[in-house]
Amino acid sequence: MQSNVYDVTDWRTSRRAPVDATHDIGAVINSIIADVKTRQTNPEDKPGAVIYIPPGTYSLKTRVVVDISNLTIRGSGHGFASLSIRYNSDTTGWHELNPGGSRIKVENTDGASEAFLVSRGGQPRLGAIAFENVCLDGVSFGVNQNSYRNGKVGIRFATDNDSVRVRGVGMVYLERGLVVQGADALDVSGNFIAECGNGIELLGGSQATTIRGNHIGAGPVGFSIFAENSNGLLITGNNVFPRGIDSIHLKNCFRTNISANRLHSFYPGSITLEGSCKENLISSNMFERQVESYGPFIGVGNGLTDDVGVVQINGDGNTVTANHVTLIIPPEQVAPAGGIPAIFRVVQGDQNVIGANHVISNLDVRTVVLEAGTTNSHVYDSGTEAQFHALSTSYGFRATP
Amino acid sequence: MQSNVYDVTDWRTSRRAPVDATHDIGAVINSIIADVKTRQTNPEDKPGAVIYIPPGTYSLKTRVVVDISNLTIRGSGHGFASLSIRYNSDTTGWHELNPGGSRIKVENTDGASEAFLVSRGGQPRLGAIAFENVCLDGVSFGVNQNSYRNGKVGIRFATDNDSVRVRGVGMVYLERGLVVQGADALDVSGNFIAECGNGIELLGGSQATTIRGNHIGAGPVGFSIFAENSNGLLITGNNVFPRGIDSIHLKNCFRTNISANRLHSFYPGSITLEGSCKENLISSNMFERQVESYGPFIGVGNGLTDDVGVVQINGDGNTVTANHVTLIIPPEQVAPAGGIPAIFRVVQGDQNVIGANHVISNLDVRTVVLEAGTTNSHVYDSGTEAQFHALSTSYGFRATP
Amino acid sequence: MQSNVYDVTDWRTSRRAPVDATHDIGAVINSIIADVKTRQTNPEDKPGAVIYIPPGTYSLKTRVVVDISNLTIRGSGHGFASLSIRYNSDTTGWHELNPGGSRIKVENTDGASEAFLVSRGGQPRLGAIAFENVCLDGVSFGVNQNSYRNGKVGIRFATDNDSVRVRGVGMVYLERGLVVQGADALDVSGNFIAECGNGIELLGGSQATTIRGNHIGAGPVGFSIFAENSNGLLITGNNVFPRGIDSIHLKNCFRTNISANRLHSFYPGSITLEGSCKENLISSNMFERQVESYGPFIGVGNGLTDDVGVVQINGDGNTVTANHVTLIIPPEQVAPAGGIPAIFRVVQGDQNVIGANHVISNLDVRTVVLEAGTTNSHVYDSGTEAQFHALSTSYGFRATP
Repeated sequence: MQSNVYDVTDWRTSRRAPVDATHDIGAVINSIIADVKTRQTNPEDKPGAVIYIPPGTYSLKTRVVVDISNLTIRGSGHGFASLSIRYNSDTTGWHELNPGGSRIKVENTDGASEAFLVSRGGQPRLGAIAFENVCLDGVSFGVNQNSYRNGKVGIRFATDNDSVRVRGVGMVYLERGLVVQGADALDVSGNFIAECGNGIELLGGSQATTIRGNHIGAGPVGFSIFAENSNGLLITGNNVFPRGIDSIHLKNCFRTNISANRLHSFYPGSITLEGSCKENLISSNMFERQVESYGPFIGVGNGLTDDVGVVQINGDGNTVTANHVTLIIPPEQVAPAGGIPAIFRVVQGDQNVIGANHVISNLDVRTVVLEAGTTNSHVYDSGTEAQFHALSTSYGFRATP
Repeated sequence: MQSNVYDVTDWRTSRRAPVDATHDIGAVINSIIADVKTRQTNPEDKPGAVIYIPPGTYSLKTRVVVDISNLTIRGSGHGFASLSIRYNSDTTGWHELNPGGSRIKVENTDGASEAFLVSRGGQPRLGAIAFENVCLDGVSFGVNQNSYRNGKVGIRFATDNDSVRVRGVGMVYLERGLVVQGADALDVSGNFIAECGNGIELLGGSQATTIRGNHIGAGPVGFSIFAENSNGLLITGNNVFPRGIDSIHLKNCFRTNISANRLHSFYPGSITLEGSCKENLISSNMFERQVESYGPFIGVGNGLTDDVGVVQINGDGNTVTANHVTLIIPPEQVAPAGGIPAIFRVVQGDQNVIGANHVISNLDVRTVVLEAGTTNSHVYDSGTEAQFHALSTSYGFRATP
Repeated sequence: MQSNVYDVTDWRTSRRAPVDATHDIGAVINSIIADVKTRQTNPEDKPGAVIYIPPGTYSLKTRVVVDISNLTIRGSGHGFASLSIRYNSDTTGWHELNPGGSRIKVENTDGASEAFLVSRGGQPRLGAIAFENVCLDGVSFGVNQNSYRNGKVGIRFATDNDSVRVRGVGMVYLERGLVVQGADALDVSGNFIAECGNGIELLGGSQATTIRGNHIGAGPVGFSIFAENSNGLLITGNNVFPRGIDSIHLKNCFRTNISANRLHSFYPGSITLEGSCKENLISSNMFERQVESYGPFIGVGNGLTDDVGVVQINGDGNTVTANHVTLIIPPEQVAPAGGIPAIFRVVQGDQNVIGANHVISNLDVRTVVLEAGTTNSHVYDSGTEAQFHALSTSYGFRATP
């Protein structure tokens, strides 16, 4: 019986891959997937395969198309290295300059933007695919390495999928790291996604997905975590760095649980619930809003002002409780000048609760802002009466004793 | 030196397993374990072994008995596929029909119910055993594939054990997935346990166990997570689907921490503390109670009525705080007809706290119910006075402002 | 192309390691690292390597020095066995006596204290190193096996580092398990660190580190988790056993998030914020303070008295919310005799919040103590007025209803 375990480095020699994996790992993996499909043709019995990528430096010139279930693509090293530091430093005498591990240089010459595209028509949805412990390296952001723009996507799931795992992967210098359409019971855990335009994007509706235990930091042009139309998303145990527009940006999402994360930001806004976001829970998170101190990014921002709210809510029935927020901004850097930063801001919606949160700031801030038209808000133990700013009259309020 | 790394697919050819792993992986693994015991006879030096199961389809006809410590059984793929969807669909033209990955079909012909039985007499307790990333597939629930009854058990630990790990495993179509007797410092993390009668059961007393980061969904006949007589159980970061009787059911458990989970249910009851459950913490969880919308299961229920409580407490000194609950039931589907659903319900006990929770519903609900005989309850910031229903007079109460 | 995947058990036979890995795995790994450095000399292209350690018993006589990035050291088994139980038991007839798995006996004969030292001068910082699933066994604490003193260190990072992972490792009978200097975005997850003097130590300043999902239990001479001068540390999902001086001890740390852990202690003190600790969040944790019941350790303590506080705060702007604390001490064992145990104690600092916590005890306790000189404390819903003990007059207070 031929094994279902493949190694990209010995596939060419023993078989018939068009090229060596170091020259085009995409072509090699596509050749392996074709082999799996040739060998596994009985719908009753398609166990899939493991494609192992040992530590090494591989160019990906051809996009991989994953159109089989039960495929694991596994490396041995997330290989992160800060290209941001490298680009903005004198690197004379450096021991090493680039990411490493099972490093896939995303250098498509095929016109495709993705390193990996997961997509299949028909039934059932693709399922039980796993990406593990590789390094997806976008290599360069071109003339301006601080731009976070190069059109490259690490992994994109373009069709609905079930019980997929993305674990332990490193993604760096991609415009978009992980993009998943139509996820059901997706697990994104223990990854290192940094210096990408966007980190994780859940598009087109998803359910029962978990984003857990990741290190993530998007660039100023995108979001560390973005989701739309999701239900039952669980975001927990993540350590999110600056500098995304938002650490977590939800659009029309229902019943997300955002708990026990650490969220660090350099710009206005850390969590935004956009559109009509209903019945989400934000609890037990540490928010730290500081200002940029790294030379190359001083002056870069997300275009927002500090009155938008560290947490901004649009929609009904959301819950914000048991969080700590630290906001420290030199007074002269507050935007707009002379403005008053907002911490928890309900822009529109009914029955939102802001309770039992603690805000620390060097400034006079509005710990809770209720915009005109918000209804039946409940605000308690989240600051003083002076810090509470209601443009609506439909609320209950109790100051922290 | 002979290696302590075994591969089930090459054990027969090079050695003397009775059969091929595809025909009876159970017999092959038992043969490997026997080999380990033959080779490792010095009590000072028993490092154990790894038994690797590559992606493939394996029948298990003989129960595996694990009676050595330090054994890792590792696959490369949890291989989940929804048999519930398959069974209830027209599968003409489907790409694949069954689970995959390192798929073990639990087809015992030996009269045993377990695929894996972990058991040993004498001292010390078995320790440091690991199950990783295999797919345990119960194959069928017989005539009625929606029954969740077939008598099959994925993994059962029958004797006390220490520092065991069950990680990344898939379990499907088993009447009972993981059953552990007498656990100490067990780690059950990152698994995918779905379409099983029961998901995880901790029996007979346990301590310091962690159930973390799993996707779990039991059938209507059982529990996603069940524990009895445990102390110090930590349940966090889990995304629990319907349709279990309960998402989490604790019986006589002490000092559990249930935090930062997402719990979705289609029936009355989501967390139940049965018997005498003391000093447990339920915080920062997202509860979603909806109704069944999937045709084959409409009309199936757990036999309970909506007044039992989404969270039901029996025992003293428990804490329920910082949770969000959404309960949406079409009025005509409330049970009993005309009844009033209860969210947090203290059935009996002293010194229980329900504080700083937020409930959203389309119905008039009782956010907190204190049954007659409950004493010294503390209820605050968990709804209005009208939503509070006390049959006892021994409590403190403060409405959400 | 020579592979970047190494196996310690076949390195000598095919190459030129000085000794067999069973005799000195340290010398073998150093030889492998030297080989990697010989082969990877181009700073543009240093993917690193994996060094695999199969299950087996290996003596480490020579300290390993890791001075390359992107190196993974991986075993197949954390191999924990309680030497505490063994030492304090009659072991006649025991099946096995020692830890197992990929077991490295730390028996340095080179005068070094560490099994693994990670250290390099120059730029950039070492990055993307991973330790996975080995067992680091300190073997013995000498004449008094209950002493937790032997001068041995499992892994020590001595120079600044980036995006390192320590996952699934077992550490036992070391005076210090994991010691990391200057961590950035470190991930310490899923480890089993028990019966060590200290568990995890973060020294010299760190940022954005996550300690997640570990089982940890230090000895009476140290801390399960210690950090100094850190910013943005996330400690979540850990199950911490006795018997450390503290479960978590922070010194001059900022904006830590300690959420969703289970913390069990036998001595006064469970979390201490020492020095000037600012704006840390402690939420959704289960604290259990019991007394020692295991014979060999009865009478052993950490020298502190019960009035120090289960949670002790020094510094400004910290937040303690949504926690459950159980403290059960036989009255005659309270220290000092006749003293009143403190649960949440603010020793010094401004703007600390203690809100929405629940304390259960068999004793009359002070749920919150504010020492003289503390200012602007906010205490609410954390006990009765009688349980509140303020030596300062600068606070707000509201009793639990």
